[in-house]
Amino acid sequence: MVETTLAANIGSAARAMKTMGLSDLVLVKPKSVHTEEAYARASGAIDIMDNLKVVDSLSEAVSDCGFVMGSSARIRGLPWPLINPREAAEEAVLKGPDKPVALVFGRESSGLSNEELAQCHRHVHIPANPEYSSLNVASAIQILAYECRMAALGASAFEDKNEQREAPIADHESMEGFIQHLQQTLVDIQFLDPNNPKLLMTRLRRLYLRAELDQTEINILRGILKSTQKLKDG
Amino acid sequence: MVETTLAANIGSAARAMKTMGLSDLVLVKPKSVHTEEAYARASGAIDIMDNLKVVDSLSEAVSDCGFVMGSSARIRGLPWPLINPREAAEEAVLKGPDKPVALVFGRESSGLSNEELAQCHRHVHIPANPEYSSLNVASAIQILAYECRMAALGASAFEDKNEQREAPIADHESMEGFIQHLQQTLVDIQFLDPNNPKLLMTRLRRLYLRAELDQTEINILRGILKSTQKLKDG
Repeated sequence: MVETTLAANIGSAARAMKTMGLSDLVLVKPKSVHTEEAYARASGAIDIMDNLKVVDSLSEAVSDCGFVMGSSARIRGLPWPLINPREAAEEAVLKGPDKPVALVFGRESSGLSNEELAQCHRHVHIPANPEYSSLNVASAIQILAYECRMAALGASAFEDKNEQREAPIADHESMEGFIQHLQQTLVDIQFLDPNNPKLLMTRLRRLYLRAELDQTEINILRGILKSTQKLKDG
Repeated sequence: MVETTLAANIGSAARAMKTMGLSDLVLVKPKSVHTEEAYARASGAIDIMDNLKVVDSLSEAVSDCGFVMGSSARIRGLPWPLINPREAAEEAVLKGPDKPVALVFGRESSGLSNEELAQCHRHVHIPANPEYSSLNVASAIQILAYECRMAALGASAFEDKNEQREAPIADHESMEGFIQHLQQTLVDIQFLDPNNPKLLMTRLRRLYLRAELDQTEINILRGILKSTQKLKDG
Protein backbone atom coordinates (compact mmCIF):
# COMPACT_ATOMS: atom_id res chain seq x y z
CA MET A 1 0.00 0.00 0.00
CA VAL A 2 1.58 3.25 -1.17
CA GLU A 3 1.29 6.41 0.96
CA THR A 4 -1.93 5.39 2.64
CA THR A 5 -3.45 8.30 4.55
CA LEU A 6 -5.87 6.56 6.90
CA ALA A 7 -4.61 3.97 9.37
CA ALA A 8 -8.16 2.57 9.41
CA ASN A 9 -7.71 1.51 5.78
CA ILE A 10 -4.51 -0.32 6.69
CA GLY A 11 -6.34 -2.24 9.40
CA SER A 12 -9.21 -3.08 7.03
CA ALA A 13 -6.68 -4.20 4.40
CA ALA A 14 -5.02 -6.51 6.94
CA ARG A 15 -8.38 -8.08 7.76
CA ALA A 16 -9.26 -8.44 4.06
CA MET A 17 -5.93 -10.17 3.42
CA LYS A 18 -6.20 -12.53 6.36
CA THR A 19 -9.72 -13.67 5.45
CA MET A 20 -8.32 -14.71 2.07
CA GLY A 21 -5.18 -16.37 3.39
CA LEU A 22 -2.64 -13.68 2.49
CA SER A 23 -0.11 -12.44 5.04
CA ASP A 24 2.66 -10.11 3.85
CA LEU A 25 1.67 -6.46 4.06
CA VAL A 26 4.21 -3.80 3.09
CA LEU A 27 3.55 -0.08 3.49
CA VAL A 28 5.34 2.56 1.47
CA LYS A 29 5.57 5.83 3.44
CA PRO A 30 2.22 5.55 5.28
CA LYS A 31 0.91 8.63 7.11
CA SER A 32 0.20 6.62 10.24
CA VAL A 33 0.14 2.92 11.02
CA HIS A 34 -0.29 1.32 14.42
CA THR A 35 -3.23 3.31 15.70
CA GLU A 36 -6.04 2.04 17.86
CA GLU A 37 -8.46 2.37 14.95
CA ALA A 38 -6.21 0.37 12.65
CA TYR A 39 -6.16 -2.50 15.13
CA ALA A 40 -9.92 -2.25 15.67
CA ARG A 41 -10.48 -2.54 11.93
CA ALA A 42 -7.94 -5.34 11.60
CA SER A 43 -10.09 -7.39 13.97
CA GLY A 44 -8.57 -10.90 13.96
CA ALA A 45 -5.64 -9.95 11.69
CA ILE A 46 -3.44 -8.72 14.53
CA ASP A 47 -0.53 -10.86 13.32
CA ILE A 48 -0.52 -9.12 9.94
CA MET A 49 -0.55 -5.72 11.67
CA ASP A 50 2.28 -6.74 14.01
CA ASN A 51 4.43 -8.14 11.21
CA LEU A 52 3.88 -5.54 8.49
CA LYS A 53 6.91 -3.82 6.98
CA VAL A 54 7.30 -0.08 6.43
CA VAL A 55 9.62 1.08 3.64
CA ASP A 56 10.53 4.31 1.86
CA SER A 57 9.78 3.50 -1.76
CA LEU A 58 7.85 1.17 -4.00
CA SER A 59 11.16 -0.10 -5.40
CA GLU A 60 12.21 -1.21 -1.96
CA ALA A 61 8.81 -2.78 -1.26
CA VAL A 62 8.91 -5.03 -4.31
CA SER A 63 12.66 -5.63 -4.46
CA ASP A 64 12.39 -9.40 -3.91
CA CYS A 65 9.34 -9.86 -6.15
CA GLY A 66 9.43 -11.56 -9.52
CA PHE A 67 6.18 -10.09 -10.71
CA VAL A 68 4.47 -6.80 -9.84
CA MET A 69 0.90 -5.77 -10.56
CA GLY A 70 -0.40 -2.29 -9.86
CA SER A 71 -4.01 -1.38 -9.26
CA SER A 72 -5.14 1.36 -11.60
CA ALA A 73 -8.54 3.04 -11.77
CA ARG A 74 -7.76 5.08 -14.82
CA ILE A 75 -6.75 4.23 -18.34
CA ARG A 76 -3.40 5.98 -18.57
CA GLY A 77 -1.95 7.91 -21.45
CA LEU A 78 0.61 5.23 -22.14
CA PRO A 79 -1.15 1.92 -22.71
CA TRP A 80 0.09 -0.86 -20.46
CA PRO A 81 -0.89 -4.50 -20.29
CA LEU A 82 -4.25 -4.08 -18.58
CA ILE A 83 -5.99 -7.00 -16.93
CA ASN A 84 -8.96 -7.52 -14.66
CA PRO A 85 -8.71 -8.92 -11.10
CA ARG A 86 -9.49 -12.47 -12.22
CA GLU A 87 -6.71 -12.47 -14.77
CA ALA A 88 -4.37 -10.88 -12.24
CA ALA A 89 -5.11 -13.63 -9.73
CA GLU A 90 -4.47 -16.32 -12.32
CA GLU A 91 -1.11 -14.78 -13.12
CA ALA A 92 -0.29 -14.44 -9.42
CA VAL A 93 -1.04 -18.11 -8.80
CA LEU A 94 0.94 -19.15 -11.88
CA LYS A 95 3.98 -17.07 -10.98
CA GLY A 96 3.82 -17.29 -7.20
CA PRO A 97 5.72 -20.55 -6.75
CA ASP A 98 8.72 -19.06 -8.54
CA LYS A 99 9.23 -15.72 -6.78
CA PRO A 100 6.95 -13.54 -4.65
CA VAL A 101 4.26 -11.66 -6.55
CA ALA A 102 3.29 -8.12 -5.46
CA LEU A 103 -0.08 -6.45 -5.72
CA VAL A 104 0.34 -2.69 -5.36
CA PHE A 105 -2.36 -0.26 -4.25
CA GLY A 106 -2.11 3.52 -4.35
CA ARG A 107 -3.18 6.53 -2.35
CA GLU A 108 -6.82 7.01 -1.30
CA SER A 109 -6.94 10.31 -3.18
CA SER A 110 -4.92 9.74 -6.31
CA GLY A 111 -3.92 6.10 -6.68
CA LEU A 112 -0.50 5.25 -8.04
CA SER A 113 1.67 7.76 -9.89
CA ASN A 114 2.71 7.17 -13.48
CA GLU A 115 6.23 6.51 -12.24
CA GLU A 116 5.00 3.82 -9.85
CA LEU A 117 2.74 2.27 -12.47
CA ALA A 118 5.73 2.08 -14.80
CA GLN A 119 7.37 -0.31 -12.32
CA CYS A 120 4.58 -2.83 -12.74
CA HIS A 121 4.45 -5.75 -15.15
CA ARG A 122 0.69 -5.41 -15.35
CA HIS A 123 -1.97 -2.87 -14.50
CA VAL A 124 -5.01 -4.30 -12.82
CA HIS A 125 -8.29 -2.55 -13.46
CA ILE A 126 -11.37 -3.41 -11.41
CA PRO A 127 -14.25 -3.01 -13.88
CA ALA A 128 -16.21 -0.62 -11.69
CA ASN A 129 -19.28 1.45 -12.46
CA PRO A 130 -18.05 4.25 -14.77
CA GLU A 131 -20.45 6.66 -13.06
CA TYR A 132 -18.81 6.03 -9.70
CA SER A 133 -15.65 3.96 -9.78
CA SER A 134 -14.07 5.06 -6.52
CA LEU A 135 -13.59 1.92 -4.45
CA ASN A 136 -12.26 2.18 -0.95
CA VAL A 137 -8.64 0.95 -1.07
CA ALA A 138 -9.28 -1.88 1.42
CA SER A 139 -12.30 -2.95 -0.66
CA ALA A 140 -10.09 -3.10 -3.74
CA ILE A 141 -7.64 -5.24 -1.76
CA GLN A 142 -10.53 -7.45 -0.62
CA ILE A 143 -11.52 -8.09 -4.24
CA LEU A 144 -8.00 -8.87 -5.41
CA ALA A 145 -7.31 -11.07 -2.37
CA TYR A 146 -10.59 -12.89 -2.96
CA GLU A 147 -9.72 -13.51 -6.60
CA CYS A 148 -6.29 -14.81 -5.56
CA ARG A 149 -7.94 -17.24 -3.18
CA MET A 150 -10.45 -18.36 -5.80
CA ALA A 151 -7.61 -18.92 -8.28
CA ALA A 152 -5.51 -20.75 -5.69
CA LEU A 153 -8.41 -23.02 -4.77
CA GLY A 154 -8.99 -23.59 -8.47
CA ALA A 155 -11.43 -26.29 -9.33
CA SER A 156 -11.81 -27.35 -5.74
CA ALA A 157 -13.71 -24.14 -4.99
CA PHE A 158 -16.45 -25.37 -7.28
CA GLU A 159 -17.64 -28.31 -5.29
CA ASP A 160 -20.06 -30.79 -6.64
CA LYS A 161 -23.38 -29.55 -5.32
CA ASN A 162 -24.50 -33.11 -4.82
CA GLU A 163 -21.79 -33.67 -2.26
CA GLN A 164 -23.72 -31.49 0.18
CA ARG A 165 -26.74 -33.73 -0.09
CA GLU A 166 -27.68 -35.83 2.90
CA ALA A 167 -28.93 -38.64 0.75
CA PRO A 168 -28.09 -39.62 -2.82
CA ILE A 169 -30.38 -38.53 -5.61
CA ALA A 170 -33.23 -41.01 -6.09
CA ASP A 171 -32.91 -43.52 -8.89
CA HIS A 172 -35.28 -43.68 -11.80
CA GLU A 173 -37.31 -46.57 -10.40
CA SER A 174 -37.85 -44.81 -7.10
CA MET A 175 -38.87 -41.62 -8.88
CA GLU A 176 -41.34 -43.48 -11.08
CA GLY A 177 -42.78 -45.21 -8.02
CA PHE A 178 -43.41 -41.81 -6.46
CA ILE A 179 -45.02 -40.41 -9.62
CA GLN A 180 -47.35 -43.44 -9.87
CA HIS A 181 -48.26 -43.06 -6.20
CA LEU A 182 -48.90 -39.33 -6.69
CA GLN A 183 -51.11 -40.00 -9.70
CA GLN A 184 -53.18 -42.65 -7.87
CA THR A 185 -53.63 -40.33 -4.89
CA LEU A 186 -54.77 -37.45 -7.12
CA VAL A 187 -57.35 -39.77 -8.66
CA ASP A 188 -58.43 -40.92 -5.18
CA ILE A 189 -59.04 -37.38 -3.97
CA GLN A 190 -60.74 -36.54 -7.28
CA PHE A 191 -58.26 -33.87 -8.23
CA LEU A 192 -57.29 -35.77 -11.35
CA ASP A 193 -59.91 -37.11 -13.76
CA PRO A 194 -58.37 -40.24 -15.30
CA ASN A 195 -60.60 -39.79 -18.37
CA ASN A 196 -59.42 -36.25 -18.94
CA PRO A 197 -55.94 -35.98 -17.42
CA LYS A 198 -54.77 -33.07 -19.61
CA LEU A 199 -51.19 -32.05 -18.83
CA LEU A 200 -51.41 -32.28 -15.06
CA MET A 201 -49.15 -35.29 -14.52
CA THR A 202 -46.66 -34.02 -17.09
CA ARG A 203 -46.40 -30.71 -15.26
CA LEU A 204 -45.96 -32.39 -11.89
CA ARG A 205 -43.39 -34.79 -13.29
CA ARG A 206 -41.42 -31.91 -14.73
CA LEU A 207 -41.58 -30.05 -11.41
CA TYR A 208 -40.32 -32.99 -9.34
CA LEU A 209 -37.66 -33.98 -11.84
CA ARG A 210 -36.36 -30.44 -11.76
CA ALA A 211 -36.12 -30.65 -7.98
CA GLU A 212 -33.82 -33.70 -8.26
CA LEU A 213 -35.37 -35.48 -5.28
CA ASP A 214 -33.26 -37.63 -3.03
CA GLN A 215 -34.52 -40.84 -1.44
CA THR A 216 -35.29 -39.21 1.93
CA GLU A 217 -37.47 -36.63 0.19
CA ILE A 218 -39.30 -39.30 -1.78
CA ASN A 219 -39.99 -41.14 1.48
CA ILE A 220 -41.45 -37.95 3.01
CA LEU A 221 -43.62 -37.21 -0.04
CA ARG A 222 -44.90 -40.80 -0.20
CA GLY A 223 -45.63 -40.61 3.53
CA ILE A 224 -47.84 -37.59 2.86
CA LEU A 225 -49.56 -39.44 0.00
CA LYS A 226 -50.22 -42.44 2.27
CA SER A 227 -51.75 -40.21 4.97
CA THR A 228 -53.94 -38.57 2.33
CA GLN A 229 -55.14 -41.91 1.01
CA LYS A 230 -55.87 -43.16 4.55
CA LEU A 231 -57.99 -40.07 5.16
CA LYS A 232 -60.00 -40.85 2.06
CA ASP A 233 -60.52 -44.49 3.04
CA GLY A 234 -61.43 -43.79 6.61
CA MET B 1 -28.79 -6.29 5.40
CA VAL B 2 -30.38 -7.91 8.43
CA GLU B 3 -30.10 -6.27 11.85
CA THR B 4 -26.87 -4.46 11.09
CA THR B 5 -25.36 -3.00 14.26
CA LEU B 6 -22.94 -0.41 12.87
CA ALA B 7 -24.18 2.41 10.67
CA ALA B 8 -20.63 2.66 9.31
CA ASN B 9 -21.06 -0.77 7.73
CA ILE B 10 -24.27 0.39 6.06
CA GLY B 11 -22.43 3.34 4.55
CA SER B 12 -19.56 1.13 3.38
CA ALA B 13 -22.06 -1.30 1.88
CA ALA B 14 -23.74 1.53 -0.04
CA ARG B 15 -20.38 2.59 -1.47
CA ALA B 16 -19.49 -1.02 -2.35
CA MET B 17 -22.82 -1.40 -4.16
CA LYS B 18 -22.55 1.85 -6.07
CA THR B 19 -19.03 1.12 -7.33
CA MET B 20 -20.43 -2.07 -8.85
CA GLY B 21 -23.59 -0.53 -10.29
CA LEU B 22 -26.11 -1.83 -7.75
CA SER B 23 -28.66 0.51 -6.17
CA ASP B 24 -31.44 -1.02 -4.05
CA LEU B 25 -30.45 -1.33 -0.41
CA VAL B 26 -32.99 -2.70 2.07
CA LEU B 27 -32.32 -2.84 5.81
CA VAL B 28 -34.16 -5.20 8.14
CA LYS B 29 -34.38 -3.74 11.64
CA PRO B 30 -31.03 -1.90 11.64
CA LYS B 31 -29.72 -0.53 14.94
CA SER B 32 -29.00 2.87 13.40
CA VAL B 33 -28.94 4.19 9.87
CA HIS B 34 -28.51 7.79 8.79
CA THR B 35 -25.57 8.76 10.96
CA GLU B 36 -22.74 11.06 10.02
CA GLU B 37 -20.33 8.14 9.94
CA ALA B 38 -22.57 6.17 7.60
CA TYR B 39 -22.61 9.06 5.13
CA ALA B 40 -18.86 9.55 5.48
CA ARG B 41 -18.28 5.89 4.63
CA ALA B 42 -20.82 5.97 1.81
CA SER B 43 -18.67 8.63 0.13
CA GLY B 44 -20.19 9.11 -3.35
CA ALA B 45 -23.11 6.75 -2.73
CA ILE B 46 -25.34 9.36 -1.10
CA ASP B 47 -28.23 8.47 -3.41
CA ILE B 48 -28.24 4.87 -2.18
CA MET B 49 -28.22 6.08 1.44
CA ASP B 50 -31.04 8.54 0.75
CA ASN B 51 -33.18 5.96 -1.03
CA LEU B 52 -32.65 2.91 1.17
CA LYS B 53 -35.68 1.15 2.62
CA VAL B 54 -36.07 0.06 6.24
CA VAL B 55 -38.41 -2.86 6.97
CA ASP B 56 -39.35 -5.11 9.90
CA SER B 57 -38.63 -8.58 8.57
CA LEU B 58 -36.68 -10.45 5.94
CA SER B 59 -39.97 -11.66 4.45
CA GLU B 60 -41.03 -8.08 3.90
CA ALA B 61 -37.65 -7.16 2.42
CA VAL B 62 -37.75 -9.89 -0.22
CA SER B 63 -41.52 -10.07 -0.80
CA ASP B 64 -41.30 -9.01 -4.47
CA CYS B 65 -38.19 -11.08 -5.23
CA GLY B 66 -38.22 -14.19 -7.37
CA PHE B 67 -34.89 -15.49 -6.13
CA VAL B 68 -33.23 -15.07 -2.76
CA MET B 69 -29.65 -15.91 -1.84
CA GLY B 70 -28.36 -15.71 1.72
CA SER B 71 -24.75 -15.26 2.72
CA SER B 72 -23.67 -18.01 5.09
CA ALA B 73 -20.31 -18.49 6.75
CA ARG B 74 -21.14 -21.76 8.36
CA ILE B 75 -22.19 -25.12 7.05
CA ARG B 76 -25.52 -25.62 8.78
CA GLY B 77 -26.98 -28.78 10.25
CA LEU B 78 -29.39 -29.21 7.40
CA PRO B 79 -27.49 -28.90 4.12
CA TRP B 80 -28.88 -26.41 1.61
CA PRO B 81 -27.84 -25.75 -1.98
CA LEU B 82 -24.49 -24.07 -1.35
CA ILE B 83 -22.74 -22.00 -4.00
CA ASN B 84 -19.78 -19.65 -4.15
CA PRO B 85 -20.04 -15.94 -5.02
CA ARG B 86 -19.25 -16.52 -8.68
CA GLU B 87 -22.00 -19.07 -9.10
CA ALA B 88 -24.35 -16.80 -7.14
CA ALA B 89 -23.62 -13.91 -9.48
CA GLU B 90 -24.25 -16.05 -12.53
CA GLU B 91 -27.62 -17.09 -11.14
CA ALA B 92 -28.44 -13.49 -10.21
CA VAL B 93 -27.72 -12.30 -13.74
CA LEU B 94 -29.70 -15.16 -15.28
CA LYS B 95 -32.73 -14.62 -13.07
CA GLY B 96 -32.62 -10.86 -12.71
CA PRO B 97 -34.53 -9.97 -15.89
CA ASP B 98 -37.52 -12.00 -14.68
CA LYS B 99 -38.06 -10.76 -11.10
CA PRO B 100 -35.80 -8.95 -8.62
CA VAL B 101 -33.05 -11.08 -7.06
CA ALA B 102 -32.08 -10.53 -3.41
CA LEU B 103 -28.69 -11.00 -1.80
CA VAL B 104 -29.12 -11.21 1.95
CA PHE B 105 -26.42 -10.45 4.53
CA GLY B 106 -26.69 -11.10 8.27
CA ARG B 107 -25.64 -9.55 11.53
CA GLU B 108 -22.01 -8.58 12.14
CA SER B 109 -21.86 -10.92 15.13
CA SER B 110 -23.89 -13.93 14.11
CA GLY B 111 -24.88 -13.75 10.45
CA LEU B 112 -28.31 -14.98 9.40
CA SER B 113 -30.50 -17.17 11.63
CA ASN B 114 -31.50 -20.64 10.53
CA GLU B 115 -35.04 -19.36 10.04
CA GLU B 116 -33.80 -16.60 7.73
CA LEU B 117 -31.53 -18.99 5.82
CA ALA B 118 -34.52 -21.29 5.31
CA GLN B 119 -36.19 -18.54 3.26
CA CYS B 120 -33.36 -18.56 0.72
CA HIS B 121 -33.15 -20.53 -2.51
CA ARG B 122 -29.39 -20.71 -2.20
CA HIS B 123 -26.78 -20.19 0.46
CA VAL B 124 -23.71 -18.32 -0.71
CA HIS B 125 -20.44 -19.19 0.93
CA ILE B 126 -17.36 -17.05 0.38
CA PRO B 127 -14.52 -19.56 0.41
CA ALA B 128 -12.54 -17.72 3.08
CA ASN B 129 -9.47 -18.79 5.03
CA PRO B 130 -10.70 -21.47 7.45
CA GLU B 131 -8.31 -20.14 10.10
CA TYR B 132 -9.94 -16.72 9.96
CA SER B 133 -13.07 -16.50 7.89
CA SER B 134 -14.66 -13.44 9.47
CA LEU B 135 -15.14 -10.94 6.66
CA ASN B 136 -16.50 -7.51 7.42
CA VAL B 137 -20.10 -7.47 6.17
CA ALA B 138 -19.47 -4.58 3.75
CA SER B 139 -16.45 -6.48 2.39
CA ALA B 140 -18.63 -9.51 1.78
CA ILE B 141 -21.09 -7.24 -0.04
CA GLN B 142 -18.20 -5.79 -2.06
CA ILE B 143 -17.20 -9.28 -3.22
CA LEU B 144 -20.73 -10.32 -4.17
CA ALA B 145 -21.41 -7.00 -5.90
CA TYR B 146 -18.13 -7.30 -7.80
CA GLU B 147 -19.01 -10.82 -8.93
CA CYS B 148 -22.45 -9.61 -10.04
CA ARG B 149 -20.81 -6.91 -12.12
CA MET B 150 -18.32 -9.35 -13.63
CA ALA B 151 -21.19 -11.70 -14.47
CA ALA B 152 -23.32 -8.90 -15.89
CA LEU B 153 -20.47 -7.70 -18.08
CA GLY B 154 -19.98 -11.24 -19.35
CA ALA B 155 -23.67 -12.10 -19.29
CA SER B 156 -23.87 -12.82 -22.97
CA ALA B 157 -21.55 -15.78 -22.40
CA PHE B 158 -24.15 -17.56 -20.28
CA GLU B 159 -27.21 -19.02 -21.86
CA ASP B 160 -30.51 -18.51 -20.15
CA LYS B 161 -31.50 -21.82 -18.66
CA ASN B 162 -34.91 -20.39 -17.86
CA GLU B 163 -35.83 -19.83 -21.47
CA GLN B 164 -38.01 -22.92 -21.53
CA ARG B 165 -40.22 -21.76 -18.68
CA GLU B 166 -43.87 -21.18 -19.46
CA ALA B 167 -44.53 -18.92 -16.50
CA PRO B 168 -42.24 -16.64 -14.51
CA ILE B 169 -40.79 -17.90 -11.24
CA ALA B 170 -43.10 -17.29 -8.27
CA ASP B 171 -42.28 -14.44 -5.96
CA HIS B 172 -41.40 -14.85 -2.31
CA GLU B 173 -44.86 -13.96 -1.01
CA SER B 174 -46.54 -16.50 -3.24
CA MET B 175 -44.01 -19.16 -2.22
CA GLU B 176 -44.57 -18.43 1.48
CA GLY B 177 -48.34 -18.64 0.95
CA PHE B 178 -47.89 -22.10 -0.53
CA ILE B 179 -45.60 -23.25 2.33
CA GLN B 180 -48.14 -22.05 4.91
CA HIS B 181 -50.93 -23.83 3.07
CA LEU B 182 -48.86 -27.01 2.86
CA GLN B 183 -48.09 -26.88 6.57
CA GLN B 184 -51.76 -26.39 7.51
CA THR B 185 -52.80 -29.28 5.28
CA LEU B 186 -50.20 -31.60 6.79
CA VAL B 187 -51.51 -30.72 10.24
CA ASP B 188 -55.09 -31.30 9.04
CA ILE B 189 -54.30 -34.78 7.74
CA GLN B 190 -52.30 -35.52 10.90
CA PHE B 191 -49.05 -36.04 9.03
CA LEU B 192 -47.42 -33.16 10.90
CA ASP B 193 -47.61 -32.92 14.67
CA PRO B 194 -47.50 -29.17 15.42
CA ASN B 195 -46.13 -29.97 18.88
CA ASN B 196 -43.26 -31.99 17.46
CA PRO B 197 -42.61 -30.69 13.95
CA LYS B 198 -38.96 -31.82 13.79
CA LEU B 199 -37.35 -30.86 10.49
CA LEU B 200 -40.25 -31.79 8.27
CA MET B 201 -41.24 -28.29 7.11
CA THR B 202 -37.62 -27.25 6.68
CA ARG B 203 -36.97 -30.25 4.44
CA LEU B 204 -40.10 -29.58 2.37
CA ARG B 205 -39.24 -25.91 2.11
CA ARG B 206 -35.77 -26.78 0.87
CA LEU B 207 -37.19 -29.21 -1.67
CA TYR B 208 -39.69 -26.71 -3.13
CA LEU B 209 -37.23 -23.80 -3.11
CA ARG B 210 -34.80 -25.98 -5.01
CA ALA B 211 -37.50 -26.68 -7.58
CA GLU B 212 -37.90 -22.92 -8.24
CA LEU B 213 -41.65 -23.13 -8.65
CA ASP B 214 -43.46 -20.90 -11.11
CA GLN B 215 -46.89 -19.45 -10.41
CA THR B 216 -48.73 -22.08 -12.47
CA GLU B 217 -47.09 -24.83 -10.46
CA ILE B 218 -47.97 -23.15 -7.18
CA ASN B 219 -51.57 -22.93 -8.35
CA ILE B 220 -51.59 -26.67 -9.13
CA LEU B 221 -50.02 -27.62 -5.79
CA ARG B 222 -52.43 -25.41 -3.85
CA GLY B 223 -55.30 -26.93 -5.82
CA ILE B 224 -54.16 -30.36 -4.61
CA LEU B 225 -53.95 -29.07 -1.04
CA LYS B 226 -57.48 -27.63 -1.26
CA SER B 227 -58.87 -30.94 -2.52
CA THR B 228 -57.09 -32.74 0.31
CA GLN B 229 -58.53 -30.37 2.90
CA LYS B 230 -62.03 -30.69 1.44
CA LEU B 231 -61.77 -34.48 1.71
CA LYS B 232 -60.88 -34.16 5.36
CA ASP B 233 -63.77 -31.81 6.07
CA GLY B 234 -66.37 -33.86 4.45
